Amino acid sequence: MDYAEESLKLHYKWKGKIETSCRVPLETRADLSLAYTPGVAAPCLEIQKDVEKSYELTRRGNTVAVVTDGSAVLGLGDIGPEAGMPVMEGKCALFKAFAGIDAIPICIRSKSIDDIVNTVRLIAGSFGGINLEDIAAPRCFEVERRLKKCCGIPVFHDDQHGTAVVALSALINALKLTGRKLSGVRIVVNGAGAAGTAITKMLLDAGAQNVIMCDRAGALYKGKDGMTDSQSEMAMVTNLGKETGALSDVIKGADVFIGVSAPHCVTPEMVKSMNRAPVVFAMANPEPEIMPEDALKAGAAVVGTGRSDFPNQINNVLAFPGIFRGALDVRAADINEEMKMAAAYAIASIIPKDELSENNILPAAFDKRVTPSVAEAVAEAARKSGVARI
Amino acid sequence: MDYAEESLKLHYKWKGKIETSCRVPLETRADLSLAYTPGVAAPCLEIQKDVEKSYELTRRGNTVAVVTDGSAVLGLGDIGPEAGMPVMEGKCALFKAFAGIDAIPICIRSKSIDDIVNTVRLIAGSFGGINLEDIAAPRCFEVERRLKKCCGIPVFHDDQHGTAVVALSALINALKLTGRKLSGVRIVVNGAGAAGTAITKMLLDAGAQNVIMCDRAGALYKGKDGMTDSQSEMAMVTNLGKETGALSDVIKGADVFIGVSAPHCVTPEMVKSMNRAPVVFAMANPEPEIMPEDALKAGAAVVGTGRSDFPNQINNVLAFPGIFRGALDVRAADINEEMKMAAAYAIASIIPKDELSENNILPAAFDKRVTPSVAEAVAEAARKSGVARI
Repeated sequence: MDYAEESLKLHYKWKGKIETSCRVPLETRADLSLAYTPGVAAPCLEIQKDVEKSYELTRRGNTVAVVTDGSAVLGLGDIGPEAGMPVMEGKCALFKAFAGIDAIPICIRSKSIDDIVNTVRLIAGSFGGINLEDIAAPRCFEVERRLKKCCGIPVFHDDQHGTAVVALSALINALKLTGRKLSGVRIVVNGAGAAGTAITKMLLDAGAQNVIMCDRAGALYKGKDGMTDSQSEMAMVTNLGKETGALSDVIKGADVFIGVSAPHCVTPEMVKSMNRAPVVFAMANPEPEIMPEDALKAGAAVVGTGRSDFPNQINNVLAFPGIFRGALDVRAADINEEMKMAAAYAIASIIPKDELSENNILPAAFDKRVTPSVAEAVAEAARKSGVARI
Repeated sequence: MDYAEESLKLHYKWKGKIETSCRVPLETRADLSLAYTPGVAAPCLEIQKDVEKSYELTRRGNTVAVVTDGSAVLGLGDIGPEAGMPVMEGKCALFKAFAGIDAIPICIRSKSIDDIVNTVRLIAGSFGGINLEDIAAPRCFEVERRLKKCCGIPVFHDDQHGTAVVALSALINALKLTGRKLSGVRIVVNGAGAAGTAITKMLLDAGAQNVIMCDRAGALYKGKDGMTDSQSEMAMVTNLGKETGALSDVIKGADVFIGVSAPHCVTPEMVKSMNRAPVVFAMANPEPEIMPEDALKAGAAVVGTGRSDFPNQINNVLAFPGIFRGALDVRAADINEEMKMAAAYAIASIIPKDELSENNILPAAFDKRVTPSVAEAVAEAARKSGVARI
């Protein structure tokens, strides 16, 4: 199937992938008097007395805003807020289908950090959580950092943390399968934007001790010229041996390659230069850094990609529905490191050890066990880390 | 029934009066590839080429934001954005039930005009229209004026214009019934806030030549001290005889009283002082300016209120669903005077002349003929006045 052509045809037919529906009867005068005036004054006054009641008397506690500025949509780059809408609507449809969450697409007509932060901050009282989507790096880092401080509800940039959670899940199982420990492996992360940064942070949090990040200009190291603020920060905690050189240099001897970068930038020779039985996650979309058959032929023990037509799809849909479900269920004030870590381990643990194989390190996107299991783990982590409010 | 108590109970049970639902299948990998990546890139790119395609490829063209700052919710005053949510959700439910429109509640945590305008302006690309709701006067006037200029989609403050449209509909039929012409009657409008101002403007647009506005301090007249900017403007085009005095003074000899003010501020004596067979619309909610039985006993020929438990309910739900339906159907750039006027006459014309009676000047809220008829008239007026885009 030509997905592009068929999808375009369907989008013209659908005219929107989500809609609203009424949860209350509106057939009689009495219905109107109860759902609207004059009866509705009573729940309003309850919330005025205690704003937390908005979670019990309105849909807020099950509602998430999916917010973009349209600046980094899929691999398409800065296509603008309106053009980002089909992706945001798709995401909202996934929120509903996978986690029963009511998600609303909000496309912001500005790429100013102040504008994005102010807009989201000012509408945050209508929502139980904020899912930031497809906002370009490095802007996305400050947008998220500032919103986390001022919204009072969970704020989660899925391109960063959703990707990081699922990549870590995949790595946990790939290392289990190949008999290695996270603390002992050499990992190269190629791509030093939003996803690469979040993945690296999560790997470090999970116990990795030897991670090197690369961008187009090669390995990041402390003091290197031309790095963004966020890259400089990452260079302080990675590549402690201050190795320099191109990807093809630092990948030598690595146990794990994680790419969130560009099509075809990894050669079979580079895979051959890695440690024995290496793990290769080539997550560039739709064209991976190296095709799975090439990586396997070059000696990779396990290969994952972002694509649904290969085994081991590293797909955010394994994470974000359950993460938000769990956060909303306990009215979490934040989605913190503990909750993301719990999500990563919950996803990994869906596959029992004896079912792990080079073609089966992650559950499938439609595995019904995933979201409830992630939600439960995330809610528990929220409680333990003190951000749960109920 | 105690609506307050019962409504509160139901709101705890409902936990929200609207929700989202999926319009697309999401059961298989192919579904995902069509509604989301990679297929979704195709509609994104179409919209990037021509932003108007967002109306064909997303739900935008059927979606309205219901926006408040929570500053004038029902008769409750400034209860805050979160506390306004039950009303906004109710409004959104009505949009869906009455006009098939997907409406999203957006409660803004600021009462600054700049904040409200910027927030709505920046998210306007996600919506086909903006319904402003329960924003206090005089702030609401400038918010609406500025948004109409910068959003590129219809912006409509329902408390002003919805109320004005239905009040005019009611008056058209009340005058028909009592054999008078709008151009010949003396009208007193009590209440000089958002609704009173909009009603008066619409009466003048419709041909009324003798309107006096009052607020707590009595009749507005050109040059009076202590008026707001908007009241000063209105004093230029009303009360051309510069009459002064209290409501009880200027109501003498009036053919029509329209109250959007306060409970029980009109006495039977005041109704008796009006012209023969006067029309009394006592729209204060939930307690009208004068109870219908008292007004009728004092000689009123026709009485309307805002309440569903009396005849002749002057209810915005007769107007806003059809007005937005018509505007969205032709992708109108604005909801202009011509469209509002068309809506008023469409509502009035639902009741054939031979069915008009003192208890039947307006269709009931649930009359299924109203919304389609209003939508058609509004769409036609949009075409004729040049704001229709399809």
